[in-house]
Amino acid sequence: MPDTPFLAVDTARLDRNLATVAERVRAAGLDLRPHAKTHKCAEIAARQIDSGATGLTVATIGEAEAFAAASPGRADLFIAYPLWVTPGKGARLRALAERAALRVAVDSAAGARQLAAELHDTGVTVLVEVDSGQHRTGVAPAAAGEIAAAAAELGLEVIGVFTFPGHGYGLGDARRTAAEQEVTALTEAAESLRDNGIEPRVRSGGSTPTIAFAEAGVLTEVRPGVYPFNDAQQVELGSGDFADVALTAVSTVVHRTGSRVVVDAGSKVIGADRPAWVTGFGRLLDHPRARIVGLSEHHAVIEFGDDAPAQSIPDPGSVLRVVPNHVCTAVNLVDDLIAEYPDGSTQRWPVIARGANS
Amino acid sequence: MPDTPFLAVDTARLDRNLATVAERVRAAGLDLRPHAKTHKCAEIAARQIDSGATGLTVATIGEAEAFAAASPGRADLFIAYPLWVTPGKGARLRALAERAALRVAVDSAAGARQLAAELHDTGVTVLVEVDSGQHRTGVAPAAAGEIAAAAAELGLEVIGVFTFPGHGYGLGDARRTAAEQEVTALTEAAESLRDNGIEPRVRSGGSTPTIAFAEAGVLTEVRPGVYPFNDAQQVELGSGDFADVALTAVSTVVHRTGSRVVVDAGSKVIGADRPAWVTGFGRLLDHPRARIVGLSEHHAVIEFGDDAPAQSIPDPGSVLRVVPNHVCTAVNLVDDLIAEYPDGSTQRWPVIARGANS
Repeated sequence: MPDTPFLAVDTARLDRNLATVAERVRAAGLDLRPHAKTHKCAEIAARQIDSGATGLTVATIGEAEAFAAASPGRADLFIAYPLWVTPGKGARLRALAERAALRVAVDSAAGARQLAAELHDTGVTVLVEVDSGQHRTGVAPAAAGEIAAAAAELGLEVIGVFTFPGHGYGLGDARRTAAEQEVTALTEAAESLRDNGIEPRVRSGGSTPTIAFAEAGVLTEVRPGVYPFNDAQQVELGSGDFADVALTAVSTVVHRTGSRVVVDAGSKVIGADRPAWVTGFGRLLDHPRARIVGLSEHHAVIEFGDDAPAQSIPDPGSVLRVVPNHVCTAVNLVDDLIAEYPDGSTQRWPVIARGANS
Repeated sequence: MPDTPFLAVDTARLDRNLATVAERVRAAGLDLRPHAKTHKCAEIAARQIDSGATGLTVATIGEAEAFAAASPGRADLFIAYPLWVTPGKGARLRALAERAALRVAVDSAAGARQLAAELHDTGVTVLVEVDSGQHRTGVAPAAAGEIAAAAAELGLEVIGVFTFPGHGYGLGDARRTAAEQEVTALTEAAESLRDNGIEPRVRSGGSTPTIAFAEAGVLTEVRPGVYPFNDAQQVELGSGDFADVALTAVSTVVHRTGSRVVVDAGSKVIGADRPAWVTGFGRLLDHPRARIVGLSEHHAVIEFGDDAPAQSIPDPGSVLRVVPNHVCTAVNLVDDLIAEYPDGSTQRWPVIARGANS
């Protein structure tokens, strides 16, 4: 076993998660274009393509470069981010377009001008990002056609619209409500493109919490990210359970005081994400009642509860598996994932796009 | 300029911060042993030693290995963490002890047994960690002597006590109260060692928010980490101001809707730390009234306020400098810092201990 803390992948659970979602998306009549920012890992991208994904989604040019280089064939990549394309980024995108089918995003007329100046005649296609309720990037759905027309006029090939229903990360009805708003927004955006004489043949949405509600018709593809691994957020949202969690931070107990223990996996290996609706800084795979009540860079403070039997509380030296709140930021903290196979063997999977922020 | 987002260091501010704290600590009659987990960078460690630091503090064996390898002379390193020393970690520590003066930490009799089994006769010295109120690791001060005696009986050389007053990260009187509790805890812990016949010649404390209150006497050394750079937490705590912030995430505006803009620096470059007492997910160096109201992996959503003049709100393509909440986790996300010199030249400083979690 490597020295703790490290991130381990249960390959049997990973493969099951990949197959389950691939089958669900296929049955719904949708294309699957998983977001590779979650795993940043060539081994997992290859498994996703093998299980029927039509291509990958990425967030940055750097991620696209990493996956284009790692792809055995010609990669099909969608950078689902409204890049502001400087000449430097333009040169990188043109180089990428030589070796991969490339889709990029736009959400303003000014952004379209930047794109067009750098990417005319490269075969790179464009999707307009619309805001379905998260209020991050993306234009109002009714304005999508205007942006699409501006881009088309500049010589860009606009193939559709996309949105990210990130406001589905919430308790209660948030997932269902966000999925409904996604459909409404993509419907309106598609009409807006048609009103401007542009056929929106790609209508892309989806996220791990909302794909259970996705249906073909308005949507043509979904872009879930987290589903290969799941994480504490997905468990607490109800879009997965502990049996579906395929990635954990293997950690060692270094301190115990009563029902409180401290492990060596802190924010520099599990990440510091902590939305208001989660119950702590992460969970424990094998102790569902325990909560991580404090987190520093190299300490997670875990409370087992005053009523926990003393013999159930791990002593220093015990090894615990921590489930990060948000697996995408955890993976980005390590150079390698330790893949654990059912036969007990292990392999190092390099996180090829770690730190690829630009 | 590199493609955004990237982390930039203003070397003039860095050098001023290093000199200010070195002088303050010297004037207080204390040794300075800065925590290198903040910068993980050989260039900054060298500046700290040049400005009079007696050695470095680190959090992990991996960080110690990186700084021992980068040190021009024999490094003097304190791993201020109650390691659970397995045979694998023991072998690494023994190899380190060949090339660096090494101090390690202990906070339990069981931990001392592990240490002693691996590190007898290596010259590695030991400090007992005490809890001064943060309730993370560390024993109650009155129990320090018992742990020290157990370690000494096993053949370890115990040279003192240390604490981290992390509960000084809070508003109001938190800094002063934590600094006072630190003095009380170290006083009691030192007495407890003397009662057990062990002279606590090192009494180590300090953090960036509390060093302003540190005085020689009870303490012999301080271990601040953040002071070379400062960050949004320090500004909001009142232990620094924007003019002292030496590290920023250089980012590009990719979207604007009214008084809200989105930049391309998200949690994968500034970190997701957000304690309850801060006003957002980070700050802007040149726009003190703006707040980061939302953060995703590659998006920071910034609100300039309804009353901000329209012409003061940056358009897409503008470059903004984001001040991370917690600089230690931001630095750990990148391979290089871009050092910006007063003459306009730049240099890449590798983050040599990035990801060194074990």
